[in-house]
Amino acid sequence: MTDLVNHQVRLAKRPDAAATREHWNFTTEPVGQPDDGGVLIKTLSLSLDPAMRGWLNDARSYIPPVAIGEVMRAGGIGRVTASKNPSFAVGDTVYGTLGVQEYMLIPQADIKRNGLVKIDLRAGSIGQWLNVLGMPGMTGYFGLMDVGQPKEGETVVVSGAAGAVGQTVGQLAKIKGCRVVGIAGGEAKCKWVVEELGFDACIDYKAGEGAVRTGLKEHCPKGVDIYFDNVGGEILDAVLAKLARKARVIICGAISQYNNANSMPAAGPRNYLSLLVNRARMEGIVVFDYADRYHLAVAELAGYLKDGRMKSKEDVVKGIETFPESLNKLFAGENFGKLVLEVSTD
Amino acid sequence: MTDLVNHQVRLAKRPDAAATREHWNFTTEPVGQPDDGGVLIKTLSLSLDPAMRGWLNDARSYIPPVAIGEVMRAGGIGRVTASKNPSFAVGDTVYGTLGVQEYMLIPQADIKRNGLVKIDLRAGSIGQWLNVLGMPGMTGYFGLMDVGQPKEGETVVVSGAAGAVGQTVGQLAKIKGCRVVGIAGGEAKCKWVVEELGFDACIDYKAGEGAVRTGLKEHCPKGVDIYFDNVGGEILDAVLAKLARKARVIICGAISQYNNANSMPAAGPRNYLSLLVNRARMEGIVVFDYADRYHLAVAELAGYLKDGRMKSKEDVVKGIETFPESLNKLFAGENFGKLVLEVSTD
Repeated sequence: MTDLVNHQVRLAKRPDAAATREHWNFTTEPVGQPDDGGVLIKTLSLSLDPAMRGWLNDARSYIPPVAIGEVMRAGGIGRVTASKNPSFAVGDTVYGTLGVQEYMLIPQADIKRNGLVKIDLRAGSIGQWLNVLGMPGMTGYFGLMDVGQPKEGETVVVSGAAGAVGQTVGQLAKIKGCRVVGIAGGEAKCKWVVEELGFDACIDYKAGEGAVRTGLKEHCPKGVDIYFDNVGGEILDAVLAKLARKARVIICGAISQYNNANSMPAAGPRNYLSLLVNRARMEGIVVFDYADRYHLAVAELAGYLKDGRMKSKEDVVKGIETFPESLNKLFAGENFGKLVLEVSTD
Repeated sequence: MTDLVNHQVRLAKRPDAAATREHWNFTTEPVGQPDDGGVLIKTLSLSLDPAMRGWLNDARSYIPPVAIGEVMRAGGIGRVTASKNPSFAVGDTVYGTLGVQEYMLIPQADIKRNGLVKIDLRAGSIGQWLNVLGMPGMTGYFGLMDVGQPKEGETVVVSGAAGAVGQTVGQLAKIKGCRVVGIAGGEAKCKWVVEELGFDACIDYKAGEGAVRTGLKEHCPKGVDIYFDNVGGEILDAVLAKLARKARVIICGAISQYNNANSMPAAGPRNYLSLLVNRARMEGIVVFDYADRYHLAVAELAGYLKDGRMKSKEDVVKGIETFPESLNKLFAGENFGKLVLEVSTD
């Protein structure tokens, strides 16, 4: 084991717009061995998420920025290859903040901070554990259920419908008896969302000027009771204009704005006074607040995956060296399903 | 009585920006007498409110627009001068949608739609019944208590602090044990809000570039738990940037934007993603939703007025012919206290 080399991706400088190859450094280090209480993890697959772009900004947020020179933060799944901690045995599969690197050596003091937990591959595949059973699934679950509070028969609209959070939100809303309309980019995604995931309709926001407005008018004749927003920008404004009385807007992200300087939206939602007219509510969600209930959501969602009521689609890219370009697929809307970076298969 | 003349103000055409004299027609009509079940009301005082500007737009809102040629809608207090309705006796003081006119003849079928209710001048003066005990007070009460849900020790910020809604919100929040910071225009209003109403501080938004941002930093060191927004625009954005975790933003109005075409904000709140970072909520309130609980709020607020824990300030303008210019005092921030149009004193 002593000859093992750890390939890593570190933040070289902060981007003002999209992060490109020049903003990253590729480094190698020898792989160390754990001290008492520590563990060594070999990275299998990493989750690539829109939120990563926000972590590159030197700005106040719900989590500190990644420091210059630091290994890029990433949640992922790995295998324990050495352990001096009684809670983790060699061969265990774990989820945690592993970073964009092939190995993660975690001293005992950092195990909790890195959120290291064992996962059971009988409940779902590695891809599913990064998707419906992972952070995107938890975000969708608690955002929809706790903030949105869907009632049977209500109309739920979700943007980024073919993405990681969106697919969980839409399928879960269907299971809860809602009418579900997705918004996604391109015919293929829209077709998949309707035919494979069972959404009632899906609006292709790339279908031309006014496509979202027209689509909402057609597919949400009684207005929108719940809007789960992953994108911000003009799509948020278009949905605000169609809110039903007492609507709930869940602000989960604003991927359309993340490559702006400091992730600051170019413009705010001009139609926000629709909240007043419709006595509606717009509320933010940060998934970490629900950590003590993840296990309940995982159990429910794993059940839906098992009995076929829910599907999970991942878009797998391979090799740590592709990280800079792979991350940008998210902002171009080029991923189809939850974007996963496969680092190793054993 | 048959020789009485009713002077009225009717909407002549829809304004694109501020409504000026050219947008109104002054008409006169003979005063009729009530049929069976109807009443004749003589207007005493009318409430002039920011929301009136919105009623002039031909746009979907929480209430239909005033039609061209129609008497301008206004809530007000009057005296019953003729009645064929057993619920109302000559001499009764009533509140209802009377319109900008000296007399209102209400047929039985319209009594409910016009919200006609008897009021008791022992609970408060006519001015107080249009202010703390009227629609502004009800808006402030239910917006703060039901939507804001203040907890002792929390920091409450209210814009339009010297206005009708703002003075109720701030004083009520103090009574509920909150730290209260007002935002108002000019030294005189700020001084009054602090010295007479007992707010902890008041920020003068006219004190120069950055005054609101600096003031919030100074007076809300732990962030803002509740923001009651009457103004929108840059002030809303400045407060969003200072939200505390789990903050509540009550959207009551956006007076800074009402003279734009269709009351459409020039820009939305760019800092809305602060809702996400802080797991905060922004929610609209329309006071009519709480009509079945007005009597409870009136009883509580009248008690505070009686025991001196709450004050009420009205800015009284006189004469129906001053209506066009009087209304615009609101948008220039020239009113000091609840703006009341006194039409008659007997």
